[in-house]
This record gives sequence, structure tokens and C-alpha cells, in this order.
Amino acid sequence: MEKNDLLAAHQRIQPYIHKTPVLTCRTIDDMAGAEVYFKCENFQKMGAFKMRGACNAILCLPQAARSKGVATHSSGNFAQALALAARLMGTKAFIVMPSNAPAVKKQAVLGYGGMVIDCEPTLQAREEMLHAVVAKTGATFVHPFNDDDVILGQSTAALELLEQAPSLDFIIAPVGGGGLLGGTALAAHYFSPRTVVIGAEPFGADDAWQSKQAGHIIPQTNPQTIADGLRTSLGEKTFPLIRDYVQEIIRVEEEEIVAAMRLLLERVKIVVEPSGGVSLAALLRSKDAFSGKKVGVILSGGNIDLKTLGTYFG
Amino acid sequence: MEKNDLLAAHQRIQPYIHKTPVLTCRTIDDMAGAEVYFKCENFQKMGAFKMRGACNAILCLPQAARSKGVATHSSGNFAQALALAARLMGTKAFIVMPSNAPAVKKQAVLGYGGMVIDCEPTLQAREEMLHAVVAKTGATFVHPFNDDDVILGQSTAALELLEQAPSLDFIIAPVGGGGLLGGTALAAHYFSPRTVVIGAEPFGADDAWQSKQAGHIIPQTNPQTIADGLRTSLGEKTFPLIRDYVQEIIRVEEEEIVAAMRLLLERVKIVVEPSGGVSLAALLRSKDAFSGKKVGVILSGGNIDLKTLGTYFG
Repeated sequence: MEKNDLLAAHQRIQPYIHKTPVLTCRTIDDMAGAEVYFKCENFQKMGAFKMRGACNAILCLPQAARSKGVATHSSGNFAQALALAARLMGTKAFIVMPSNAPAVKKQAVLGYGGMVIDCEPTLQAREEMLHAVVAKTGATFVHPFNDDDVILGQSTAALELLEQAPSLDFIIAPVGGGGLLGGTALAAHYFSPRTVVIGAEPFGADDAWQSKQAGHIIPQTNPQTIADGLRTSLGEKTFPLIRDYVQEIIRVEEEEIVAAMRLLLERVKIVVEPSGGVSLAALLRSKDAFSGKKVGVILSGGNIDLKTLGTYFG
Repeated sequence: MEKNDLLAAHQRIQPYIHKTPVLTCRTIDDMAGAEVYFKCENFQKMGAFKMRGACNAILCLPQAARSKGVATHSSGNFAQALALAARLMGTKAFIVMPSNAPAVKKQAVLGYGGMVIDCEPTLQAREEMLHAVVAKTGATFVHPFNDDDVILGQSTAALELLEQAPSLDFIIAPVGGGGLLGGTALAAHYFSPRTVVIGAEPFGADDAWQSKQAGHIIPQTNPQTIADGLRTSLGEKTFPLIRDYVQEIIRVEEEEIVAAMRLLLERVKIVVEPSGGVSLAALLRSKDAFSGKKVGVILSGGNIDLKTLGTYFG
């Protein structure tokens, strides 16, 4: 993935995505002792940065393949993103979801025009079902993060941020599978080498921290966190980016995630999902490291229902 | 107030305010059957458009007057706005507040560095106290809305919106004292005469609707609405603007305000105060009138505490 690949991805997806705004908040600046720039991917189409990668992956397919559709297995934001991106581009999305996925997640995919294919809730059943769907439909499998075109799509959030808030000393992004953090690291590497990239993840799903310490991928086995977007393991395409271009992974407690969500709601007036609160939580936990600096904080998404939000603040 | 006065106000206050973003949301577009552009003054400094007018009023004072400070009576957003604007400009703000105003409102003003002066909760006591404060300190009284410089400041929200979302067919703004709606009407009149300006207010505080019907100001006597920013009567400087340049006032029910706030929270991922929900409520209530059109909706502010927010959606 070269410098020009990032620019090309951005140009390619621009008609399909929002250039999300960057917000600032004096109260949080005072609390953090830093200048904080929030990149609001909670305002992205379908509510999360995943839309960027999904669009780029579909747009990179040759026309013949594109017309047969795309397929993935996911019960999270990527499923919705691929469904919406496919609809916008006039093709089909086949989404394999475990039969025990929440009904609201299936409804969301259906609402964006995706086709939901149920499978047993095991890794093996999921992969078998995906193979069957691909064999039957000719659709192209798009991995939620372990895919160059997806990573390039995700890199565009940081690309925009670096332009909207110049001279950042740091960018903090949450890390699940590593698509967003890997893409962010690439964007800083090519377009603002002095900007240090930091990952943020929950203690209860700290495979990225462990993998970076170990120097090889340590899979996430039993994630325990409300940040449902960050429960996945790194992939062999995302890990090297994080190993080489990310300075550090900061881990945060669950209560810190909720406190960050609350601050964003009360002070910045925005709704973020738990995964979206993790990067601010990391900044506030380690604020000495960022003192007096310009810090970009990527808020990854805002897909949380009001009922769940209410349980955090009730 | 001439065309150039609006431009001058915008240039004057720019260093002190946020150019707030404009957000769009496909779900709401589909519901409304229109292209909707939300001007997010809930992200304005101190959380509401009032910051614009407060800044302009202080900046228009001669230096000698400015150094003696400013004074107002308010227990709402204007009190906080004047306090913060005064602090940013290195002067003092004296805020006369009824002794029964919520402690949280006083704390907010104190937090922005304002001086709070208690008075009995009557109109007479409030005015007497204000006179006494002005006499003693030499501060200049700034009315929350019935003031040309304040109206000019408020006009800059629509000025930005017209540039951020060109070719609007309509702009809807809420109306309390009429500073925002009057300023919005002026901005459209001078810079986009084809854009029709509509006011929005609760049935429980419909003095603007009544005044427009009657052709003269009918004061608001017993307002019954959760939209605390919209309980005031029009002033003699704002009424003529609304009479001459606003096409219509749409009134909404309390449940429609709550439903609009909920939609904005769930779908746009943003927090608005009840007054901020009123303009979207008006759009959805009268959607036939806006069908297929480009509609700017000014979201006036976001100052609501989570506890109150929770009571609406609990």
C-alpha cells in the first residue's frame, strides 16, 4: 500500500461517504490539558467508519465481479456498511450472521437492502456457510478488516483529519481487527510522519497490546468488554502496520469507556458507541503523555440504541 | 440593519465562535420526503447560537464602555453566552438572575467567569436590580434579543448555513424572543431572497404565531412548554422582522418536540435541548409543505443535562 493508493481510495469513495466534521470542546481540552480534535465518524453514513472500507472494497472490484455482489460474515457495523455500500453501487450484499445475533442487527442489514443468511454460531459453521454462499452466487468475499482495500478505505478518515486539523502531534484510534488503526498509521506515515499514532483498546480485549508486546499475533480468545466493535483479533495484514507504525497501545477500563461516552454526550453533545469512547478514554487515562499537545481522536462510530445508552447513564 | 452589517458582524465574531458543521441524515430525509440540512448550533461555544449575538454585542461597544463590562437579566443560554463572551474579550459580565433559578444555571454562569446577582423572582425586582447594577458598575445593559447587535450576531448562523448548503428552498428556525428567527430572516432576505423562512414554536408558547396573526405583539403570559428557550415574548425590534420577512409560524405539540429530540439522538447521533428539537418537529408536522425541497433546519442549542434527557426517553 503506497502513498498514492491512499489518495486514490479517498477520491474513489468520496461520492459515497460523508466528509465528517472535526469538533473541539474547551471543557475537554481543559480536562485533558491538550488541544483535542474529534474526528466524528459517528456521523459517517450508517454510523461508523466501516462505510469507508466497504465502499473502497466494492469500488476496487472489476465490473464483472462487482455485478455478482459481495459477501461477508459479520454481525457488527461492517455488515451494515457492506449492505449499504452495495446498495449505493447497485449490487448485492450477502451477509452471513450467526443465528443468535441480535434481531436489531439483522433488521439493520435488511434495512440497508442486504441479504441475511443465518448460520450456526460457530466459527466453522460461519466459514462453511460463507464458502457455500460465495460458491452459489459468485459474490466476492470481503473481509471486514484483513483486506488491503478495506484498510485503504479506513485510512481516509485520518487522511481527512490531518487536513482538517493540521500539525497534529498524535492521533489516537481504537483497535479491534486493526483496519482503522492500521489505515490511520499508514495515513500518518505517508502524509504526516511527525504525527505519532496510538492505539486504544479495552483491558478486556487487549490482544493488540499483547500482540505488539510479543511481536506476533496473539488471538483474542475470550473478550470481555462493552466495546463490541473491539472484540476481534488482529489479522496478518493489519498486525504488521500496527507493529511497525503504531507507537503504543493504551488499554482502558470499562468504567473509563462509559465515562468518556458520558463526557462526549454531555459536553460535545454527541452520541458514540462504546468502541467510539475508547480513544477518548485512552487520552484521559494517559493525559500526562499528551500534555500541551495537539491530539486527534478518532470517534469510530455511533451505533448504539437509546435503551442501551440509557442503561449506562440511568 | 443593512446587508453589510451582517457581513461585518460575521467577520467580527469569527475569532470567538465555532463555524458549526451542517449534518445530513438519509433516514430523516426519507421520513421528511425532503433534503434536510441541520445547522448544528448545539455544537456552538457554550452550547447554543446565543454565543454569536453576545459576542457581537460586546465587540460593538466602544472600548471605554467595553472595559466596564456588560450586564443582562437571564437565566438561560444568553446568561452563559454573555459570561463566556465577556471572559474571552477580557471584560466582566454581571448577570441578574431570579433567586429561584436552578442552581445548575447559576453554576454554569459562574463557571464561565460571570458574576451572578440574585434578585426576587418578579419582573419589577429584576429590572430594578439591573438598573442598580448598571448604575453602580457602569456596565452596559445587553438585552438577550431585543438589540440590533444581538440580532446581527444571531443572523450569522443562517449566513453560514446559506453558504454551507446552497440553494435552500426553506430555512426553519425556532422562535422565542425572535433574535434567531429575526436574524435568520434578515440573512435570507439579503443573501438568498428565494429562500422562504419559517418559524417554529410550541403550541404552549405560541405568542409569535398569535402576534403574526394579529399584526402586533401579543405578549406571552403563561407559557407551558418544555422548550425553555422559547417561553419569552417577542420584542419591538424582532417582531417587525418576523412580520415582514417570515412566511409562517408552525406550531408543534410537546410530544412532537420529544420525538424530534429522540430522532436527532438516535439517527443523527446528536444531543439537542427541547428548543433545538422544535424546528425539526415543525418540519415533520408539516412535511407536505416541504416535500421534495431543500430545507435548512437550525438546531438552536444542546444545553440539557443527561438526567433531564433521560426523563424524556426513560
